[in-house]
Amino acid sequence: MSDAPLAPGSVIGILGGGQLGRMLATAGAALGFDVHIYDPEPDCPASRVAARSYCAPWDDAGAVANFANRCDAITYEFENVPVETVAIAAAAAPLRPGAKSLELTQDRFIEKHFINQQGVKTVPFAQVDDIDGLEAAIEDIGLPALLKTRRFGYDGKGQAWIRTEADARSAWEAIGQQPAILEGAAAFRRELSVVAARSLSGEVRAYPLAENVHGDGILKTTTAPAPGIDRTTQDRALAIARALGDGLGHVGVFAVELFDLGGGELIVNEIAPRVHNTGHWTMDGCGCDQFEQHMRAVAGWPLGDPSAHSACVMTNLIGHDADAWPELAADPQARLHLYGKRTTRDGRKMGHVNRLSPL
Amino acid sequence: MSDAPLAPGSVIGILGGGQLGRMLATAGAALGFDVHIYDPEPDCPASRVAARSYCAPWDDAGAVANFANRCDAITYEFENVPVETVAIAAAAAPLRPGAKSLELTQDRFIEKHFINQQGVKTVPFAQVDDIDGLEAAIEDIGLPALLKTRRFGYDGKGQAWIRTEADARSAWEAIGQQPAILEGAAAFRRELSVVAARSLSGEVRAYPLAENVHGDGILKTTTAPAPGIDRTTQDRALAIARALGDGLGHVGVFAVELFDLGGGELIVNEIAPRVHNTGHWTMDGCGCDQFEQHMRAVAGWPLGDPSAHSACVMTNLIGHDADAWPELAADPQARLHLYGKRTTRDGRKMGHVNRLSPL
Repeated sequence: MSDAPLAPGSVIGILGGGQLGRMLATAGAALGFDVHIYDPEPDCPASRVAARSYCAPWDDAGAVANFANRCDAITYEFENVPVETVAIAAAAAPLRPGAKSLELTQDRFIEKHFINQQGVKTVPFAQVDDIDGLEAAIEDIGLPALLKTRRFGYDGKGQAWIRTEADARSAWEAIGQQPAILEGAAAFRRELSVVAARSLSGEVRAYPLAENVHGDGILKTTTAPAPGIDRTTQDRALAIARALGDGLGHVGVFAVELFDLGGGELIVNEIAPRVHNTGHWTMDGCGCDQFEQHMRAVAGWPLGDPSAHSACVMTNLIGHDADAWPELAADPQARLHLYGKRTTRDGRKMGHVNRLSPL
Repeated sequence: MSDAPLAPGSVIGILGGGQLGRMLATAGAALGFDVHIYDPEPDCPASRVAARSYCAPWDDAGAVANFANRCDAITYEFENVPVETVAIAAAAAPLRPGAKSLELTQDRFIEKHFINQQGVKTVPFAQVDDIDGLEAAIEDIGLPALLKTRRFGYDGKGQAWIRTEADARSAWEAIGQQPAILEGAAAFRRELSVVAARSLSGEVRAYPLAENVHGDGILKTTTAPAPGIDRTTQDRALAIARALGDGLGHVGVFAVELFDLGGGELIVNEIAPRVHNTGHWTMDGCGCDQFEQHMRAVAGWPLGDPSAHSACVMTNLIGHDADAWPELAADPQARLHLYGKRTTRDGRKMGHVNRLSPL
């Protein structure tokens, strides 16, 4: 497969058609690409802005091949696409990011091990396969600690805090007695993230560091650029992103969630090998947002300029938060983005609002 | 039909699926709407970013009704949609802008007469129905003068300059001996435009005045905000936009092309009752661009903030200009927008580039 940049008019396929796929699709269209969507969900948000959409299960090998054969490059909007699906797609067209980015981030134990291998710090962690292993891990790491399933966790699901030894069994049951890791608690001052992109030629560029506030395990707000970040800390974040992006051989946008321990010390919480909710502020704060940046990388184009023209506070609209659309539409400071989801459910991300101020 | 604002998830239909329909469609999707496209051209640019598209001739009343019956509001991307098509659509769903905006701008004579009726100046003009009428008009208006067909002119087509009386017959033949108007030449210093929007409630808001340069009758560049505009001139442009928008009972974005005669004196060249090429700079220069602004108005939402965060020079990519996409993609100053047109032809608008600078 060629590394030549894709000409406008080429087809970029996206595995997954939620809000990330939707925002990627419109960004791709603005660059002149046709975007095709594959998602098991009928009438998914991205299908309504795509040149073509395919609705079939992830394990329908024929449907995946049929989709992939029409694509000039393929990407994915989330990291839990089955590896088998990805393998079929990758046989037909360049897959960007590559399968390695998925394999190393679908499993929390493998991911943290990989991060440390790149010379980047994380919290202490240990593999947990059974209740005896959990007790040994508690001994090793100390308490409080956080028990997480190795796979398929998102938005705080599949996690349980262990504060005393007596919590061990209930935590193990709460996460479904699945292969897990135990993570030590970090005494962090705040949560940051760096959203970066790596091009096909290996260039890495990062947006300004963002500060994130979660509630109930779900991102509530992002403030960007994060207040009080000096040049050294921003450079350190870029160096971390570069080490991890290079290690993955990643092509496209990825996000690194960081704990700010104070004094400019950053450790990595996790990597998302895709566009990320903590990068949604770039849609209004930067000329080239994370969705365009990702499509540029996937197309083999040079990266765009990740600098910000405005400061931004992004607020997620979760569940019935989005019912306030009449007030948000009337607020001249609010840049409203809605995802076209048909059904509102508690905890479901329905849209977001960006509020700008001068840098 | 209700004036209540359309809830996200509603269907907005667009008559016409070229680049303006395409950019309107993605802007509508960002606000959570489903956008449906009607265009006689198969595989038109907007069809590839729409929730649904209908391909049928303008005069297929059944197809138009079928499209319109599924829409909660309907708009159009260009002013030459046949009035009969618009009437069928308007019977099924609120048409915004209304039919009056089309009727008064599809015919250059009616349009200029309307503009003067609103107390707004134009160049002198006269109706021309035959060669005798042309000679009388020349007598009346003087030379040089510009002969234009009353209907269906765009990008400099259907126009001929008359510099001496001997040019009259060849000009009349050049425009196909159709009903026409003769316009006096304005001694203007430059061409400006004001892109404005009028909401369902009658509020009018305008983007900063833009300066436009044409070549061969086609827009080449827009510079915005136009250099050297004082507050009084910007206010005068807003007052002109308000008078014309109110007179049309317009709902949505419209553009007023102006001649700057110097000393802050502005006269109107023409009105485009739709989003306009001279507003493409707002995609990168403003938080709320003209496409979002139009969809807000069509949905009955309050208007967004039309202020600019950056200055911008917009350059159209006409015909094979767009072949330079590899260089443009690599230029960190260039915000590239491509329209997904399958075939490059001389004179065809293929995309545009916005280059930003601090205000």
